[in-house]
Amino acid sequence: MNVSNKELNLQKIKLLDGFWKMRNQLLCDVIIPYQWDTLNNRTEGVPLSHAVENFRIAAKELEGEPEGTIFQDSDVAKWIEAASYSLMFQSNEKLENIIDELVRLIKKSQHANGYVNTFFTAKGIDLRWSDLEMGHELYCAGHLIEASVAYYQATGKHTFMDVMMLYANLIVEEFGPEEGKLHAYDGHPEIELALYRLSDATNNQRYKDLADYFMNIRGSLDHDFDKTTAIEEMNPRVNNYEADYFLSHTPIREMTEVTGHAVRAMYLYAGMADQYRRTKEPSLWKALTSLWDSLEHKRIYITGGIGSQSHGERFTVDYDLPPNRGYNETCASIGLVFWAWRMSLLDLDSRYADMIEKEIFNGALSGISLDGKAYFYVNPLEINPKVAAFRQDMNHVLPHRAGWFDCACCPTNIARLIGSIGKYVYSSSDSGVCVHQYISSEVEMPIQGESVVLRMTTEYPWNEDVQISLHLKDDARFILSLRKPGWCDAYSLQINGSVNDSYSLEKGYILIDRIWTDKDVVLLKLEMRGRFIQSDSRVQDYCGKVALMRGPLVYCLEEIDNGQHLQELVVDSKSDFMLDETMVQSMKSVHMLFDGYRETIRTSRLYEPFKEQEKEKIQLRAIPYFQWGNRAKDQEMRVWVRII
Amino acid sequence: MNVSNKELNLQKIKLLDGFWKMRNQLLCDVIIPYQWDTLNNRTEGVPLSHAVENFRIAAKELEGEPEGTIFQDSDVAKWIEAASYSLMFQSNEKLENIIDELVRLIKKSQHANGYVNTFFTAKGIDLRWSDLEMGHELYCAGHLIEASVAYYQATGKHTFMDVMMLYANLIVEEFGPEEGKLHAYDGHPEIELALYRLSDATNNQRYKDLADYFMNIRGSLDHDFDKTTAIEEMNPRVNNYEADYFLSHTPIREMTEVTGHAVRAMYLYAGMADQYRRTKEPSLWKALTSLWDSLEHKRIYITGGIGSQSHGERFTVDYDLPPNRGYNETCASIGLVFWAWRMSLLDLDSRYADMIEKEIFNGALSGISLDGKAYFYVNPLEINPKVAAFRQDMNHVLPHRAGWFDCACCPTNIARLIGSIGKYVYSSSDSGVCVHQYISSEVEMPIQGESVVLRMTTEYPWNEDVQISLHLKDDARFILSLRKPGWCDAYSLQINGSVNDSYSLEKGYILIDRIWTDKDVVLLKLEMRGRFIQSDSRVQDYCGKVALMRGPLVYCLEEIDNGQHLQELVVDSKSDFMLDETMVQSMKSVHMLFDGYRETIRTSRLYEPFKEQEKEKIQLRAIPYFQWGNRAKDQEMRVWVRII
Repeated sequence: MNVSNKELNLQKIKLLDGFWKMRNQLLCDVIIPYQWDTLNNRTEGVPLSHAVENFRIAAKELEGEPEGTIFQDSDVAKWIEAASYSLMFQSNEKLENIIDELVRLIKKSQHANGYVNTFFTAKGIDLRWSDLEMGHELYCAGHLIEASVAYYQATGKHTFMDVMMLYANLIVEEFGPEEGKLHAYDGHPEIELALYRLSDATNNQRYKDLADYFMNIRGSLDHDFDKTTAIEEMNPRVNNYEADYFLSHTPIREMTEVTGHAVRAMYLYAGMADQYRRTKEPSLWKALTSLWDSLEHKRIYITGGIGSQSHGERFTVDYDLPPNRGYNETCASIGLVFWAWRMSLLDLDSRYADMIEKEIFNGALSGISLDGKAYFYVNPLEINPKVAAFRQDMNHVLPHRAGWFDCACCPTNIARLIGSIGKYVYSSSDSGVCVHQYISSEVEMPIQGESVVLRMTTEYPWNEDVQISLHLKDDARFILSLRKPGWCDAYSLQINGSVNDSYSLEKGYILIDRIWTDKDVVLLKLEMRGRFIQSDSRVQDYCGKVALMRGPLVYCLEEIDNGQHLQELVVDSKSDFMLDETMVQSMKSVHMLFDGYRETIRTSRLYEPFKEQEKEKIQLRAIPYFQWGNRAKDQEMRVWVRII
Repeated sequence: MNVSNKELNLQKIKLLDGFWKMRNQLLCDVIIPYQWDTLNNRTEGVPLSHAVENFRIAAKELEGEPEGTIFQDSDVAKWIEAASYSLMFQSNEKLENIIDELVRLIKKSQHANGYVNTFFTAKGIDLRWSDLEMGHELYCAGHLIEASVAYYQATGKHTFMDVMMLYANLIVEEFGPEEGKLHAYDGHPEIELALYRLSDATNNQRYKDLADYFMNIRGSLDHDFDKTTAIEEMNPRVNNYEADYFLSHTPIREMTEVTGHAVRAMYLYAGMADQYRRTKEPSLWKALTSLWDSLEHKRIYITGGIGSQSHGERFTVDYDLPPNRGYNETCASIGLVFWAWRMSLLDLDSRYADMIEKEIFNGALSGISLDGKAYFYVNPLEINPKVAAFRQDMNHVLPHRAGWFDCACCPTNIARLIGSIGKYVYSSSDSGVCVHQYISSEVEMPIQGESVVLRMTTEYPWNEDVQISLHLKDDARFILSLRKPGWCDAYSLQINGSVNDSYSLEKGYILIDRIWTDKDVVLLKLEMRGRFIQSDSRVQDYCGKVALMRGPLVYCLEEIDNGQHLQELVVDSKSDFMLDETMVQSMKSVHMLFDGYRETIRTSRLYEPFKEQEKEKIQLRAIPYFQWGNRAKDQEMRVWVRII
């Protein structure tokens, strides 16, 4: 079933008190100002960004050479995009002034032909497009374009989008199938998403055509991608990556397994979904669903982390999901949200919105500290800080969030995810409205010509009750679809206080087809018990172990609660769970207490004959995975625990 | 208790039918010829060695530049040493002629000042000692010196030793505490062992003094070691190693934890034991025993593998012993034999000879295939070939033995260990004779003025009976000490057919103090049951798992016997073991059969709620670890298995 769900305008969705409103408030109060300071080299004790300074240099308002990664511009872009979302949540004149000034700089840095890039401006823009594999020019262009659209949508100001359209026009002039143009594409997909978005915003077909072109020549032999010369001096390559790292190993329609650099992969697959949305080409859909199956059935951590190895920040082989050496980049989890959202608009199957839920409450969200000022790039499922600090094959795994990074793609990315969270809550279709995520919010939308207000209140993910009230002038018949989360076995539905069974369940959505009346109240109870989760035994690392979940949240054990040597702990499969509501850094949490054992073996010479262990019965405490590392630094943590 | 055990002359020990005689026969028939062919670039399908060719070039009998590693000479040296031992086992005129011709080449390559090194000869020997960190000149010198002593001892021919004494004299002239000499030492210990050995063989004190000097300035600030400039062009460094990689981080007397490059470490500690043997300096003994404790209690795999990570081929931190990513270089296990043997001569504590046993039947021996023509550099305790082939953090782990390596230190090293195995069987002291290893062999030695022949016959490690007959003219009272292996809980002793309890047990040795008569027969039964072994739970990887052993042998499971997905297997702690005697490549083996389960979980989406598993009851087959990978290539293998 391919349906045509429509995304709602983010501005129409008003967050109400709850989990995500608090985090959007934090975005406005802390994250956006903190990141702005950091992009301006004003945060102490973190790697200097230089990102704003680079634009000042490119605009010739400052002498010097740009510093930082070759794609440093994209950090500025993603910050503007996140700040734009924060303006939709809460207006802020001061912030708008800052962005306007930044837009003035970007505009001033723009070349007569439209080109914008601080790095290649310094090197000479005749060198543009000379290292498409690793130069990240179109990637940076993409993020700037997305930011310009977001800022326009937030404020109605179009200067930035005008600037970026000039740039987009240059790209359209210089790339494409025609003779004399470059037949090439970027090593890091992103421009495609931006061009589709710009095309939607401007109703300009050319951008979409070029995005399709970039996608369609990818992995074919007929292109200049790997003929462009790497500018080693500018952007030295430590590693020679394989074609699949760049997702250049095969044409998109022939892709069957998720592979390569996980962020590149997610952005590409999201772009493929954008293309399919327009073309409805069966071979694209086949590729998309094959890729999705590959990801969901064989190549994803329980937290939503993707990319099992550091080298190439990439996917490896089926069922290879080591808990202590995965990459699980925050950006990759965010990229998966982008892809999953596009899939759920194409096919109302709960597995896509389930995936978004998995990420926004686990793998992506763990990328930011509760105070908003520290970030994980890599999100391990298990760490022993002493070992990780020493081992070279774990030197990508930090036991604490950092204030910033030399390569700081993740912090601004998680900021724009938080700011745009409302987008993933609802969609509308001809037959009605669909609720994908349980996030306290209010939305007004036209349903079959009638303006309907939906008001959802919930303490999700801490509490199982979701209440949705409908407000409409005249009675109207339409389908209210509510996602039944994949984790939920038992749920109940009341309408206006009465248990209601007159719904159907289709592909994970509860479809309530009825004549709705003003002030109808739907109460969905999604039974939230602590539960043990096992893994397919083809994953080597999790045999004999379980993870702990409650609702959509994956839990973990931390040393601060359970002592050192977490590997000695065993959970009792017969255990009940006790909940302990608590506050961590002014944010609510629900810990789980349950029965377990500690199996301590101390030998003088490391190894000794096996004997049945005296198991010390103890109570274990698990905390939501996304909150780990917030109460103490450099502690042992683990998600998967032995079970007996 | 520091005793003064004496090593016996290897030539006095005659191997009798059994495990090690077969392997010495293989050394003569296959290993030495195969390696000679390979050192001469005559083996197809393996990396070219160039090692002999390099000497031809240095001797100006061939044009060209030396190829291979900067320490390629040492492969030739270790081959000569191994070949010399094979000549002690079995004379071979053709082989002697080959070595004599090789010695002629080496002599011809020698410079007027005594210097020998094919690599620096090509570059110009004024550059000698210019990269002591990584240049490996003294390391190569050391191996050549050891080879020359071995060849002299095997044949009585002294040309080679004369050549190497000239070189040793140059080293004595150019290094040392005196003004004008280099105050420096080699990045890779080995010269020290060689100089002690040469000193013993020639009774020349100067060599020992220089060895002491090299050892004593190590890790102090007062030396030129890190002032010598690396010749990057000659020997590019991929990595900047820390001082502890070179064992240069601290003076030897202050060392407490085994650290750094595992082979370097073992050779250094062995040298420290050589020095202590002469000086009896308490601070050295304290360091040696601290280091030993650190190794044995915290930093060694159950197989005897050492060096837990590939980067730096080195020790990491306490209890970090991942089964699938360790380095466990064959050479490091061999080096540990060298160290352990020296320790057991200094202190009659069975833990040292136990360690030798662990290595010669497990960690070191796994380095060579049963046919003698294929080698492991890295000895993993667990491998999934598909995962290991893909993952960059496992690219050092091969799922099959290779015919040779670009860096081929291990093949010739295991050859010289096999050839010198007899050396580790006995030692003599004033009070009698000590049997350290149970290896069928005969030895004649003077005990308290009387010539005694000991004849030991055993099918160890396959069978638990060890019979030792004594042959002497007149009755004599002395102590026969027999190691009680650390793995053995139950043993019995018969003398001339009667159970005998009149012995004492001291530090793991059974001391039989009596008046011995000609044709006395001692029968030692070391009860060999299959047993499960557990690890100290501070090792993260082995909690809830056991290894399997029988006698001194560590066992493992292979895919060929037990199917794919070995991680799904669980052993039943109540299981008995059945033995299955079999032959693999004309070599005997004893497999173990025991009860276990396969816990198969197949999920469509990787993760699902935990349920008590239906366990499929199955019979598992384990094989000796050292024999893995001999029946089929690229199979799953694992040592540690879950237990219930």
